[in-house]
Amino acid sequence: MARNIRLTLAYDGTRYAGWQVQRDRVSVQSTVEASIEALTGERVSLLSAGRTDAGVHALGQVVNFFTESTIPPDKWQPALQTRLPHDIVVRDSQEVPADFHATYGAKLKRYRYVIHESRIENPFIRPFAWRQNGPLDVDAMQNAADLLVGTHDFRSFESHWPNTDTSVRTMFEARLTRASGWNVWGAAPVSADPGADADYIVFEIVGDGFLYNMVRSIVGTLVCVGRRAWTLAQFQHAFQALDRNVAGETAPAQGLFLVSVTY
Amino acid sequence: MARNIRLTLAYDGTRYAGWQVQRDRVSVQSTVEASIEALTGERVSLLSAGRTDAGVHALGQVVNFFTESTIPPDKWQPALQTRLPHDIVVRDSQEVPADFHATYGAKLKRYRYVIHESRIENPFIRPFAWRQNGPLDVDAMQNAADLLVGTHDFRSFESHWPNTDTSVRTMFEARLTRASGWNVWGAAPVSADPGADADYIVFEIVGDGFLYNMVRSIVGTLVCVGRRAWTLAQFQHAFQALDRNVAGETAPAQGLFLVSVTY
Repeated sequence: MARNIRLTLAYDGTRYAGWQVQRDRVSVQSTVEASIEALTGERVSLLSAGRTDAGVHALGQVVNFFTESTIPPDKWQPALQTRLPHDIVVRDSQEVPADFHATYGAKLKRYRYVIHESRIENPFIRPFAWRQNGPLDVDAMQNAADLLVGTHDFRSFESHWPNTDTSVRTMFEARLTRASGWNVWGAAPVSADPGADADYIVFEIVGDGFLYNMVRSIVGTLVCVGRRAWTLAQFQHAFQALDRNVAGETAPAQGLFLVSVTY
Repeated sequence: MARNIRLTLAYDGTRYAGWQVQRDRVSVQSTVEASIEALTGERVSLLSAGRTDAGVHALGQVVNFFTESTIPPDKWQPALQTRLPHDIVVRDSQEVPADFHATYGAKLKRYRYVIHESRIENPFIRPFAWRQNGPLDVDAMQNAADLLVGTHDFRSFESHWPNTDTSVRTMFEARLTRASGWNVWGAAPVSADPGADADYIVFEIVGDGFLYNMVRSIVGTLVCVGRRAWTLAQFQHAFQALDRNVAGETAPAQGLFLVSVTY
């Protein structure tokens, strides 16, 4: 009987057309499926917790697939890693019950979005953050983000509406953190102390599900508040309007990370 | 009369054959020179503080060149940036006296080397750190690094000996820091607190000059101590032997950053 194998993946999405297989373009999914075929000779179809877009990264994407192979569960990790490019990493492999489904079984997902406040580009950070020139008011952004927590209709933050399903989701956390210093890739001094060079703003959001482009639309709208172009009342109005055209721009893909998935 | 322009550059060295122009390979130098030619029509030769090797990065490389152009000093930064790829950034531009020479005028250079202690690769960190499986004894490494400070003959840490010059240099600082958490590219929780996940070891060294591959040879030898394969006495013996064959391996290029140069 076929076994159900679950993998946890991290990847730098920069080079990929996104998670999903696309004609004539290299996707993370097709790259991982090719590594499984190289190992076992089997052509499998991966199920995934989230279909990350082109340029979006993952620290803890969860996938599963069925196999006839007798490779022990913990051996998949090293065996696949040797067959994968450096920008895709298998963090963990395990055998799971036949009814485990990476997409439908996901109870909570955590996404992170990184904003880099700087007048000058940083070549190490550019593929992993959205650069903003001006200082952003993180307290004002947090007040707006607080409105997102709870069960709401997030239609204002959904691209490609109408979809065929409900746009009501529940958010359990929506937190902004200004962060500094301790970042070995930045030009800033190595330091664990938040301080004058705290030029990163990290947004983390946890929910039971996310609409298409939802995190990026939320971030684009929070930045309107952070720039003081919008008041809290204007953010609230855009959120409640249930109309994507009223909210802010969609923040670019490269700042977004799928951090983890809870089953 | 020709003006002397000084630039401060940051670059991700991953894609490049190193700083220096090489036949048939793309170097950082040739890329920056091409951007200057695209802007001014002039073919210039850049002088640099350090000739970083293939895969080595810079946060504050300093270069200068002479030009007949009348572009104001502070306009070089934005004008060149639009003509450069994303992995090379001009951080600053200024006019300097005719006798400023980026190579010979350098009084102090600061290098950083990043070690990532992890059993599993991290796709975001791999191009910027040397991964080590096991736990390293940072206190033992610091005791060894302390021996480097002062004026010494560093021949044991020089590749391609004999050179034509002295191998005596003066180090003013050689410091190891175990660091955690606050690293937006890692899978670790976002946190400013050093703690259980402190899986980065950052080595910073400041000196009046560095021999070829010197920082990487030092790091390779410090890691022998960190793994407890070598005692402090063995490190001291290798240092004093003035023989490259006695010291440890040369750490890989991708963990090394030229942080800053003092004139």
